[in-house]
Amino acid sequence: MNCQQLKECIEACNQCVVFCNYCSAACLQENDVQMMAKCIYLDMQCAEICRLTVSFMCVNSAFLKETCRLCAEICQACAKECGKFDVQHCQRCAKACEQCAEKCLAMAA
Amino acid sequence: MNCQQLKECIEACNQCVVFCNYCSAACLQENDVQMMAKCIYLDMQCAEICRLTVSFMCVNSAFLKETCRLCAEICQACAKECGKFDVQHCQRCAKACEQCAEKCLAMAA
Amino acid sequence: MNCQQLKECIEACNQCVVFCNYCSAACLQENDVQMMAKCIYLDMQCAEICRLTVSFMCVNSAFLKETCRLCAEICQACAKECGKFDVQHCQRCAKACEQCAEKCLAMAA
Amino acid sequence: MNCQQLKECIEACNQCVVFCNYCSAACLQENDVQMMAKCIYLDMQCAEICRLTVSFMCVNSAFLKETCRLCAEICQACAKECGKFDVQHCQRCAKACEQCAEKCLAMAA
Repeated sequence: MNCQQLKECIEACNQCVVFCNYCSAACLQENDVQMMAKCIYLDMQCAEICRLTVSFMCVNSAFLKETCRLCAEICQACAKECGKFDVQHCQRCAKACEQCAEKCLAMAA
Repeated sequence: MNCQQLKECIEACNQCVVFCNYCSAACLQENDVQMMAKCIYLDMQCAEICRLTVSFMCVNSAFLKETCRLCAEICQACAKECGKFDVQHCQRCAKACEQCAEKCLAMAA
Repeated sequence: MNCQQLKECIEACNQCVVFCNYCSAACLQENDVQMMAKCIYLDMQCAEICRLTVSFMCVNSAFLKETCRLCAEICQACAKECGKFDVQHCQRCAKACEQCAEKCLAMAA
Repeated sequence: MNCQQLKECIEACNQCVVFCNYCSAACLQENDVQMMAKCIYLDMQCAEICRLTVSFMCVNSAFLKETCRLCAEICQACAKECGKFDVQHCQRCAKACEQCAEKCLAMAA
């Protein structure tokens, strides 16, 4: 791990927090909320693990690798679900989740 | 403020976190999710402010009174919305929110 | 996993959040803060993972087992460090962390 | 409030989370931790309110103005304390807190 890698992973996680939170609220305003229920459900969990991962990265936690691995796994699940919907907030969220997962996997390696 | 009051408020906030999180997930599995969209939306915000309020109470923060006031306000809004629905998870959540609001207002006084 | 087990684990995590937050603030007021630096450091991480674990339990997350495993590991590290100090807030925190680790390990099994 | 303003405030809060978390961990490794106890104490609270504020901004919460006001107040207190120390992590954190306070006050207006 190096500083640049850490910086990029923190930024990716923070982006993911923003897009997941935004996506959850936007999904709740869609006409067919039921179709998006799992997306909202995963957005909430994804935002939460990304926030924790940011904190653990900032303090150089001894538990960082395992945390990043878990974060990547949740991001991938969220990306997969969000990616099913064509609306912009879901597509952007899916992309943010994928980028975050990629950076977290590199950190966990 | 005294220790007993603090202990009760912490417990009320923690209960509120549990019921709000549970309610949000349960609402997402209801047939008419759309009807419950605002409930889910407020559950998420209520759980979040309650968690922060717990932390601030535990460390005896200088910002505790204002935080409790804000927490009470969000709890009241969430209780009002959840209270509209007859399903058990909403009714229980509404009650937990009301109790939390009451304890937080006492702390803020 | 059953409901009673889940309920007990949520309570143990919430207790752990409270004692870790309280311990971190109390350590910062001790004369020899430096000696307790690692305790404060771990308290903060432990409180954070416990809060996330509570949320994931409440929503019955698909990532619950891995989260509980990580939570138990951090709780054990925090318990070990806090357990080194005789002051009451550290001893109580160590005990809360141990109980939380035990419940989380049972959930992860 | 407009989109650009919101975007800048979210970025300022996220930066503040990063610098506060980093500062708290770095302070705990300084020789004179005791001198920095209040800085660590406020870093933790500041990181926490900034994280919540980010979430509330992303979902366009009805409680955003009050939250931003509280966030600005805590940022200002943290900036004032961190600003007392010449070490780089404190100086950077103080600056991040000031910028976050400024953006949050504009949001709260």
